[in-house]
Amino acid sequence: MMILGIDPGYAIVGYGVIRAERGRFQPMEHGAVVTQAGEDFNRRLEIIYDSLEKVMAHWKPDAVAIEKLYFQNNQKTAIGVAEARGVILLAAQKAKIEVFEYTPLQVKMAVTGYGQAMKPQVMEMTRRLLCLKEVPKPDDTADALAMAICHGQAAGSVFRQRMLTRTDCFK
Amino acid sequence: MMILGIDPGYAIVGYGVIRAERGRFQPMEHGAVVTQAGEDFNRRLEIIYDSLEKVMAHWKPDAVAIEKLYFQNNQKTAIGVAEARGVILLAAQKAKIEVFEYTPLQVKMAVTGYGQAMKPQVMEMTRRLLCLKEVPKPDDTADALAMAICHGQAAGSVFRQRMLTRTDCFK
Repeated sequence: MMILGIDPGYAIVGYGVIRAERGRFQPMEHGAVVTQAGEDFNRRLEIIYDSLEKVMAHWKPDAVAIEKLYFQNNQKTAIGVAEARGVILLAAQKAKIEVFEYTPLQVKMAVTGYGQAMKPQVMEMTRRLLCLKEVPKPDDTADALAMAICHGQAAGSVFRQRMLTRTDCFK
Repeated sequence: MMILGIDPGYAIVGYGVIRAERGRFQPMEHGAVVTQAGEDFNRRLEIIYDSLEKVMAHWKPDAVAIEKLYFQNNQKTAIGVAEARGVILLAAQKAKIEVFEYTPLQVKMAVTGYGQAMKPQVMEMTRRLLCLKEVPKPDDTADALAMAICHGQAAGSVFRQRMLTRTDCFK
């Protein structure tokens, strides 16, 4: 199963494509869409949309995993992030890819097994699970990969559950 | 000058196209894109995007006027509204239409000349300025038309100012 994890934003959108098979994860492509502060905001939305559209067209992921948004401190930034998230969801919808949302807590639990894990621990576990030499940069990219792993684990357990409840189990 | 006013949302997106010439306004088309609560959220974003894309392609407005977002009470709703606003901005960007943002106060001032005007007053003035027999329904459509008038007035004054500062003024 191919999964595209996304860490939404409008200045930096982290993304990571992984293949998840039987609890193992293989990194396919990861990076970040970076838009400049001096650029017109709507043009930034377009850059984000076009870039993710290309990633989706290339890898044809079975699922997109994206962070669930909560608004905290900076409301002005939050509006922009939600607007960018809107165009990301539209890109997935246009590509007919199902979208799954996870909270930071769910991601921590999935990657480290520990809900109070610190960010560096989550990143290091992400690196290990993907057999990468270094933690991907920027952080948004590592976060996106962790998000993809989280969905791989969640989808895996749904799959296992389905298998367990099937009576005509293969093998 | 053709102006598309938009009142953003994800359940109801009000829109109104007007022609503004020398301080007079002519309504061309107005209505609302309504999406159902039972529908998948990303599909709702797609319906909004596709519907406004069609309105823009048909009327080729010179400008889109849209409400500036502020977050107040319901943060959960607010995220959805901002996500919908993101895809509306993307539609304008893809159609290469410049977007202008106005606050509710600016709209009130433009339509009624009075910043403390109540909603029914704003709607009644919108109806009169557009020579409509009745206030358009739903409210979101009337709000979108008021937004378009607001830009028509603002753009008008920018135009007048430019004219006043030109030395090779025609006529």
